[in-house]
Amino acid sequence: MSKRTASSVIQPLVTMLQNIRIILINTFHPGNIGSAARAMKTMGLSDLCLVTPQRFPAPEADSMAAGALDVLENARVFASLDAAIADCALVIGTSARTRTHSFSRPMLGAEACAEKLLCESRQSPVALVFGQETMGLTNSELEKCHFHTSIDANPEYPVLNVASAIQILCYEIFKASLNKENHWHGATPEQEYPLNKELEKFYEHLETTLTDIDFIIQQHPGLVMTRLRRLFNRARPEAKELNMLRGILGAAQKASGKKRNND
Amino acid sequence: MSKRTASSVIQPLVTMLQNIRIILINTFHPGNIGSAARAMKTMGLSDLCLVTPQRFPAPEADSMAAGALDVLENARVFASLDAAIADCALVIGTSARTRTHSFSRPMLGAEACAEKLLCESRQSPVALVFGQETMGLTNSELEKCHFHTSIDANPEYPVLNVASAIQILCYEIFKASLNKENHWHGATPEQEYPLNKELEKFYEHLETTLTDIDFIIQQHPGLVMTRLRRLFNRARPEAKELNMLRGILGAAQKASGKKRNND
Repeated sequence: MSKRTASSVIQPLVTMLQNIRIILINTFHPGNIGSAARAMKTMGLSDLCLVTPQRFPAPEADSMAAGALDVLENARVFASLDAAIADCALVIGTSARTRTHSFSRPMLGAEACAEKLLCESRQSPVALVFGQETMGLTNSELEKCHFHTSIDANPEYPVLNVASAIQILCYEIFKASLNKENHWHGATPEQEYPLNKELEKFYEHLETTLTDIDFIIQQHPGLVMTRLRRLFNRARPEAKELNMLRGILGAAQKASGKKRNND
Repeated sequence: MSKRTASSVIQPLVTMLQNIRIILINTFHPGNIGSAARAMKTMGLSDLCLVTPQRFPAPEADSMAAGALDVLENARVFASLDAAIADCALVIGTSARTRTHSFSRPMLGAEACAEKLLCESRQSPVALVFGQETMGLTNSELEKCHFHTSIDANPEYPVLNVASAIQILCYEIFKASLNKENHWHGATPEQEYPLNKELEKFYEHLETTLTDIDFIIQQHPGLVMTRLRRLFNRARPEAKELNMLRGILGAAQKASGKKRNND
């Protein structure tokens, strides 16, 4: 990543992201816990809570966590969902869209879910809850949530694995955080670009050369130069590249036996 | 040039998603191929291409693909990236943001990348390319791409695994398709772009011509072609422009007295 995101700038936001808790219930494969940790860390989250995991700690979890072992080591294990959400002011449960039709909880899309979590994380911890791999959240678990969320997916096969679902929702949270701090954006690497007058000299040289090699016929210049200007302006040649292009033009003129002094 | 029909034929959305190709290069763990297939299918994509995978087919791939075995079974294996993108008019490479600072390719965020792939998939196949798990795309692979894309992530740990990156980008593509379904707004791709194999012919012709006019000296080709590829890929010549450029090359060769048959 670039250096544009100096940690001093994102400090308040980091606190907000730290307030967003990911809760996994009854996870069957410890590898998924590791994947969750990694997905969270890539998106700036760190608060992982596990409710009655099948097996944890576990080597498969460590292995899938890769560089996010710190998230795994700080993960807290709870005996119930109630205990894990006790200090949260907002709880959002994830579910496949089909499931929730029978419920009357407000349903949020992934983006709206992310926005809501981020917004309310300013004041207190908030939780995003994922159920067991194959079954998802039970009805009684869903009842404890203020909102439900589901990820838009192919109606014919909407079956994301839990690690993928966590990755996407964490990504939406991180994106929402970038929108909040959109002054991070906009830093561009400094290229050296030619001045416009240098570009104009290049275009003159180009036109002369195209005439020398009989591509442009003086009486019928047509749209050639207009089109070439459009093409090169899109590419926006850097200073070094422009020098190279002028070198090529010089070589073409020389080869045509019509080398002149172009400057 | 190819006989692809212009914008008169607007493809339905399903066909568009089918025109979006996911390419994995040198994949080390077959499980990641399976995860890619599943991630694709959850988001309505089906065209998976593998360039020199370490091991495929493989039981780990089948196991990770879950309900997306059909995507895996239809996956095509290629000996080179060139072969896999030959019929594509748009190629986008994925990379960590750090990598690309040394390049001057246009960089797209994940959403813009998805929008672009979807938009241009109406006319011809388009490709999104992922490199080997630990190394990502090599410089020479990145050079073959018209755009690069990277996923916004935690600057202190932006290390998404390849399956996660595929899932997120496929998700953005699917989201973009939902937006399109809601309203086909004015973003019609009115340009016809050359296929990659046609671009490659242009570069060959360019190199021959630069040799003919003694700009490139056979023994010391240097970085000239690399730099020119970068420049022209940035400009992304349209089909008509490419014809004009080849006309210019022909004229330069003729003027140099070394006109040959370039095709």
